[in-house]
Formats: sequence, C-alpha cells, structure tokens
Amino acid sequence: MKLMKNTAERSYEKERLYEKVADDIAYLIEAGTLRPGDKIPSVRQLSQQKGVSVTTVLQAYYLLEDRGLIEARPQSGYYVRDRIYKPLPEPEISSPESDPTRVSLHELVMMVSKDTHNPKLVQLGTAIPNPELLPMRKLNKILASLARRRDLENLMYDFPPGCEALRVQVAQRLINAGCSLSPADIVTTSGCVEAIELSLRAVCKPGDVVAIESPMYFGILQSLEALRLQALEIPTHPRDGISLEALQFALNHNRIHACLVISNYNNPLGSCIPTENKQKLVEMLEEFDIPLIEVDISGELTFDEQRPLVAKAFDRKGLVLLCSSFSKDLAPSYRVGWVAPGRYRQTVEWLKFTTNIATASLPQLAVAEFLASGGYDHHLRHIRKVYARHVAQMSQAVTRYFPPDTRVTRPQGGFVLWVQLPEQIDSLELYKRALKAEITITPGYIFSATHQYHNFIRLNAAFWSEREERAIATLGKIIEQMLAAA
Amino acid sequence: MKLMKNTAERSYEKERLYEKVADDIAYLIEAGTLRPGDKIPSVRQLSQQKGVSVTTVLQAYYLLEDRGLIEARPQSGYYVRDRIYKPLPEPEISSPESDPTRVSLHELVMMVSKDTHNPKLVQLGTAIPNPELLPMRKLNKILASLARRRDLENLMYDFPPGCEALRVQVAQRLINAGCSLSPADIVTTSGCVEAIELSLRAVCKPGDVVAIESPMYFGILQSLEALRLQALEIPTHPRDGISLEALQFALNHNRIHACLVISNYNNPLGSCIPTENKQKLVEMLEEFDIPLIEVDISGELTFDEQRPLVAKAFDRKGLVLLCSSFSKDLAPSYRVGWVAPGRYRQTVEWLKFTTNIATASLPQLAVAEFLASGGYDHHLRHIRKVYARHVAQMSQAVTRYFPPDTRVTRPQGGFVLWVQLPEQIDSLELYKRALKAEITITPGYIFSATHQYHNFIRLNAAFWSEREERAIATLGKIIEQMLAAA
Repeated sequence: MKLMKNTAERSYEKERLYEKVADDIAYLIEAGTLRPGDKIPSVRQLSQQKGVSVTTVLQAYYLLEDRGLIEARPQSGYYVRDRIYKPLPEPEISSPESDPTRVSLHELVMMVSKDTHNPKLVQLGTAIPNPELLPMRKLNKILASLARRRDLENLMYDFPPGCEALRVQVAQRLINAGCSLSPADIVTTSGCVEAIELSLRAVCKPGDVVAIESPMYFGILQSLEALRLQALEIPTHPRDGISLEALQFALNHNRIHACLVISNYNNPLGSCIPTENKQKLVEMLEEFDIPLIEVDISGELTFDEQRPLVAKAFDRKGLVLLCSSFSKDLAPSYRVGWVAPGRYRQTVEWLKFTTNIATASLPQLAVAEFLASGGYDHHLRHIRKVYARHVAQMSQAVTRYFPPDTRVTRPQGGFVLWVQLPEQIDSLELYKRALKAEITITPGYIFSATHQYHNFIRLNAAFWSEREERAIATLGKIIEQMLAAA
Repeated sequence: MKLMKNTAERSYEKERLYEKVADDIAYLIEAGTLRPGDKIPSVRQLSQQKGVSVTTVLQAYYLLEDRGLIEARPQSGYYVRDRIYKPLPEPEISSPESDPTRVSLHELVMMVSKDTHNPKLVQLGTAIPNPELLPMRKLNKILASLARRRDLENLMYDFPPGCEALRVQVAQRLINAGCSLSPADIVTTSGCVEAIELSLRAVCKPGDVVAIESPMYFGILQSLEALRLQALEIPTHPRDGISLEALQFALNHNRIHACLVISNYNNPLGSCIPTENKQKLVEMLEEFDIPLIEVDISGELTFDEQRPLVAKAFDRKGLVLLCSSFSKDLAPSYRVGWVAPGRYRQTVEWLKFTTNIATASLPQLAVAEFLASGGYDHHLRHIRKVYARHVAQMSQAVTRYFPPDTRVTRPQGGFVLWVQLPEQIDSLELYKRALKAEITITPGYIFSATHQYHNFIRLNAAFWSEREERAIATLGKIIEQMLAAA
C-alpha cells in the first residue's frame, strides 16, 4: 500500500482498509460509473491495482454484498445489483431550478446551450436548426453505406487540409457565392466555430484588437475571450450589417488587428451586408492590410431565390478568411465545417494540426457525397421557404403578444429574430422567468462583450407550431407582468 | 460591374470582360474545382454573380467552347468536357522530391505527417497504428447500424461534457488504471491532442512555462508553440520517464506553471513512469500547487498482462488532467478522445465549447457501444501480443543492420522505437536520403523545442514484414554511407 506515509497512519489505515476499498466501489456505483448489471473488477485485479491483499478485497466485497450493492454470480464474478438504492439525481445545470442571475457569464452561456438537451422546454433559445428540416435520414444512409465499404476501412488521420472530396464540393458551391477558388484553398474543420477560432489564431496574438459587428453571436465572443483577444464593437445596422463609416473611423483611430463579420444573415441581427458594402469593406481593410474573418454560416439560408455573394468574392490580396459549416442546413451533429483562409492557409493548416490533428473522416465523406449527389439545391429550396414562413409567423406573433413599443428585426435569411423590449425589461430576469414557464430564450447580454443589450432577446424561429405560438404568448404575459411591477 | 474604379479602367475592362469571365471558369477547371462532367454555372446565375450582362457570359462560354474546355448539352446547360488538356500535377509537399533541409520546422512536421498518405513509402515515420490491428470492420458496422436508427436522427450538438454513454465507458475503463471517477468527471474531445490542448489552455496563459519530458512527441511541442507556451525540457530516463530529481531542481529554481508527461510508454522514448514515481510526481507538484497534464494514450498497449496505473490514481487535489483517446487502439479516423480534468473541469468544458462546440456524435456513440459490448479487452490482448512481437523484431533488425554503436530503447508497450545513431549522423539528412529510398522516418530534431537529438530517429514498429525489414536494412546502408562520407 503506497498511499501511507508514516507508521501511525499505516496501522490506522490497515484496520479500515477493506472499508476504504468498499467505499471506493460504492462511490463508483453511486456516481454511475458502474451501473446495475455491470461486472465489477475481479478480486485479483483490484488487489493488484490498489496494492492490497486478496483477503482485503474479499472482505470489501462481502461488505458490499451485505449492503446490497453487489452480488456474486457463480463462475463469473461480482456484479452490481439490479435493484439498489439510487440516490436522487443532482439538479442539472440546465434545469429551470438554477438561478441564472447568480452564475458567471461563462456558466450562463453553457446553461443556454445545455437547455437544448431538455425536451420539456420550448426551444426559442439556442439557434439550433429544426431537425425536421435536416436531411438526416439521407445523410445517415450515406454514412452507413460508407461505413460498410471495405476500401474505407483503413482510413487514418485526414491531415490538414482535410478530406479532398469535401474540399472539391465546397469550392464548387462557392462559385455561387462569387468565389473562384481551388480545392487547395480550403481547409476542413470540425464545424464553423473551429474555422473561426483557427482564423483568429492565425491572424491575431493575445491582446490584439478585433473589430466586430455588434450584437455578435455569443459563441464568437466566448472564443475571442478564450483567446485573450479584445473585441471592438462596431455599430451595426439591423438590415445592412457593419457600419462602414463607423469602421472607417475606428480604423483611423484604433490599432485594429482583424475584423470579423457575419456577412450574410448575422446572428442575432439577421443583417446582410449589401454587395457594394462587401466590396468596400474588403477594400477598406486592404488599405490597412488588415485581415477580414467572414462568417457565412447562414448564407445558403436566404429567403431570396439566389444566395448573396460573400465579401471573399472581392478578395484580391488573400486577406479574407471565409468560414462556414454544414451545421445549420445539413447535420449539426456531424461537426463538419471549413475555412478558405487566403494567404493564411499554411498557418491555419498548422494550427488545425496542433488543435486536434484532423476532423473525423466518415462524416466529411458523407457530406461530400451528399453534395455531389445534387440533392443539396433541392433541399435548400425547400428549407428556405419553410424558414421564411416560420420567421414571418413568429414575427407576427411577437407583434401580437408583446408590448406595442417592442421592435423586431426583419431578416431575409437564417432563422433567428432579435427583439428589442421596453427599456425597463431586464433580459436576464426574463430568461429566468421564462425558464420557470419551460421556455428558453437567449438574453441579450451575452451578445456583447460590454454587456449591452440588457433589454434585448434572441428568439429561434426554426420551429413554429401551436406550442411555439403559446410560448410567445406566455412570454408576452411575463413581459407585461414585469412592466407592471417595474 | 462593381470591380471597376475609374472610367479609363472601365472602358479597358469592358473590352476584355468576357475574356476575364472565361479565364475565371478556366481557372476553376484547371484548379480541379470543376471537373470533367461537372455542370458549370448557368448563364443567368453567372451574369448575376459577376454583375455582367448575359451577352458577356455567353461570349465567355463560346470562347471556352472554342478552347475545348466546355460543351453545351441541349436543354441542360454547359458542362466541363471529359477529355480536356490536363496540366501536370504540382509536386506534392510530401513527395520524395521536396527538400526537407530547406523547409521550416512547421513545414517539416506537416511533411512528416502527410508522408502517411503516400502508399509508395514504407511507413516508419508517423506513429500510425497498424490498420490490420484495428477493429475497423466491427466499429464501422456499429456506426452503420447507429446511423440507421430512427431515434438517433435528431441528434444536435453534443455540448460539453459530451456523449454520456462514452463517458460512462471511459470512467469504467479507468478503474483498471487505478481511478475512481464519475462519468461527470470526464469531458469528451476530438482526439487526444485536443484533450492536451484544452488542458494546456485551462491551466496556462501565453508565456507560461511547462515542464515536459524530453524527448517529447512533436505534436505536443507544436501545440505548446501554437499556444505561445514555453517548454522546459526535463531529463527523462528511457525506461523510467521523467527524472524526479531534475524536476525537483527545476521546481525549486524556476517558475513553472504546469508539468506534462506521457506517463505510460512515452512517445518516442517508450518509457513508463514506475508506480512509485507516479505517486511522488503527483505529491511533488501538489506541494507547489502545479497542475499535471498526464497523457496515457498508449497505456492500454502494454506488453504486460495488466495495464500500468496512471498518476491520476494518486490525485487528491484535482490537479491532474488525464488525457487519452482511442486513436492508437481503435479508430484514428473517428477522432474520439477524452480528458478527466480534475478541478479544471468547468474551464475545460467552456474551452471545448469555444474551440468547436462539440465532437461528432455518432463516432462517440460507436466507440461507446464497442466498449460496452465487451470486445475491447479481447481485442487489446490480441494487439498487445502482436505489437510486442513487432517491436522485438524491429529492434533485432536495428541491431543487425545499424552500426554497432547504435542505441535503441526497449519499450514495454506502445509501438515506437527511439534510436540513437553515431554522433556524426544528421537525422534530417538521413530523413531526406531515406525519403529518396521511399522510406519515412521521423528525425530526432522535432522531438525537442531546443532541437536536440540531431542524431536520433524515431521508428514506427507497428508494421513488420519483409518490406519493413528490407527498409531497416536500407536505412543501415544509408547510415553506413553517411558515416563513410563524414
């Protein structure tokens, strides 16, 4: 027994040694590591691991049998008993019981995300896509048939730049967005956030200043914070995106190391930078030799017939790093994204290697095959229509049920609404009360590094049915009560 | 056309506009974005995207037809022609032609990794597992059947801490390594490197000093560099791992913010820290309140009957962050790993969220099901025997074919050998000459932040057949020639 330090301790410990061994196993059963029906370590194994005698382990196991936790099965060993006393589960961080006003901003962000797993809640919080609008059955079928192919059994690491078949498809899709890129210009990633994070790391060092649209998707703000970067929030128009005048002013007066925009259907604003402004934005930044990180995750979710161009289309100096993924329109759980990093390609490839070597191979191949099969455009036409309808319906409901001085965005793509409530409404308090009513929303606070937008909320309009309509009505009532009490 | 700036430019451009549009499409064909048989954008689409007239696009397409690049298909549009002039491919970065002595260390690391994709090469370089010793057919079968399950169609993001079924299995496996952990103590990651990177970010800030074993797996050194951390290389015994005496000295004289060891079957050394030293290591660091990042990726690949314990088994203060993955023994291409981050759990979960939100769901579930099915131990018993044999065989071949003053490690697990060659041998030059002979090795340089080990190489012993034996003989001859010329 190597844990002991002196003789006194040792003799004390010897007496209770088997109890300690028993407590260890009991802990594993309570913690859910060993579950009813699971075999527990053999006496010999445990004796070796713990450095105690076989007799001690046997004593421990007898004690656990007495306590009704385990049972011996002849010729087989000891097993966790089926009907054991099960302690009450600990409250989950995402349950309506927890108090968001007392948690840190990090915890709040994680809470809002984990709310997604709770089926009791009406999901107006996290910007998850509507699963009914994802071609998961078709994609999973492709994945299943790839997984059965003998020639794909020996896949090793898909080292950066990642899956070639996928890079070809992405480069082809980008023609529609105005880009002439080679597959070699693309690096695949594990989702869009990874693409953004690698881009930020490629062009900035800790302490650097990144000019961003404001409000900004909280996940990106968290990435900036985790990378120790400073966010400089640029005024942003709810329809036209980043204000070029304000950006020009900032460029003239601040030391800025990168600029980051969600160019098409910003989350949460829904803004889409007009083509002319995209070109101007690229030219303005070129003058200062400042890289632009452009996020286009919702570009394909346009309500128009033709998807908007990207700023990358006007990139002549390789300064634009274009980031996206298939998480909003195909398969969030596949974690397949990409970046076209321009002149920073080698650095991004190297950083991808140091972050996690590679992205999982089969999900990349499955997305590539889905895209190559030609079903993507048909699928997009369908979901664009549905999301346009849901956004309009939720918008109407907000108009009907919320106080008359509420303001709401009119996005032409994506599936989120950004709602400005009367000044007196604290969105964190509203989040808390909504959770009690089993509705999630995203409080405005977390869309700003300086915690502006206290009276704003983001609503996910991906889902629309009577259930969501009732939830909007309930939210309206809660807001009324809050106004009455204010 | 919005790209123009002044009248002179504009009129000049107008004349050549259709040529420019044609060149753009020709570029996409040459770059491999549009491939033989692919449909090219419709005239209307391209006219909208480029902001040029339909006539201009038509002129461009006629030109491309003339050049033999595209063809019109009635009622369908324009397609890339099947037999077009194909330019010679650019030389690949990983081909034997490139000159490693002229590339940066980053490029060299990426080159060594990408060598893996070249089937012409005898793979003694990257530490990839032997695909014949991976249960890929069984795993892929599980993955395929999961992908066909209706109840798994609506999977969204597996927010941190990640897939619960997998965390239960990992916590159970860890009993064998001496740990009593709850599934809630585990965070799943996209492979082991991600687990290490998240751990480093959780406990260090840029500029901090990390005490590491030396030599150290180059991927970890690259992660340290990418995170702007300083490596303090601690002398390491080829059998017993990190020297505790040297570490104690360093702790007394340096400001150290974290310690990182590959506790079981270090890569490249093969060292395994004795149980007693593991406990001492944890206690030493506890005294200074310094976190220990422990990598156990090869712990299950022991040549003994019983896998060694981990240092985490002695962690009383939550200071040990234990990192591993299933990339060496199950499925490198699945990218499934995990970390047990002790008291840093919340920070690691948050950093995982900011890095890439989540790991792909189905690969995690497939690994969990494989582990739960009980086939893992049987599989491990088999591959441990084979790797033990291969390591012994390669070691004998090195003894036979290399110069008599060569030294080689005697690992008791894993599948790499660390070879010390005569002082005059430059391992980078050897790497270069070996590549010409279609053999990859890993030069010693990249296993040290201070570029020691110039006369060392790492050999991957996962594969052993006549082909590898011939390769070792060839390496022996090259080394002889180098010695003769020196």
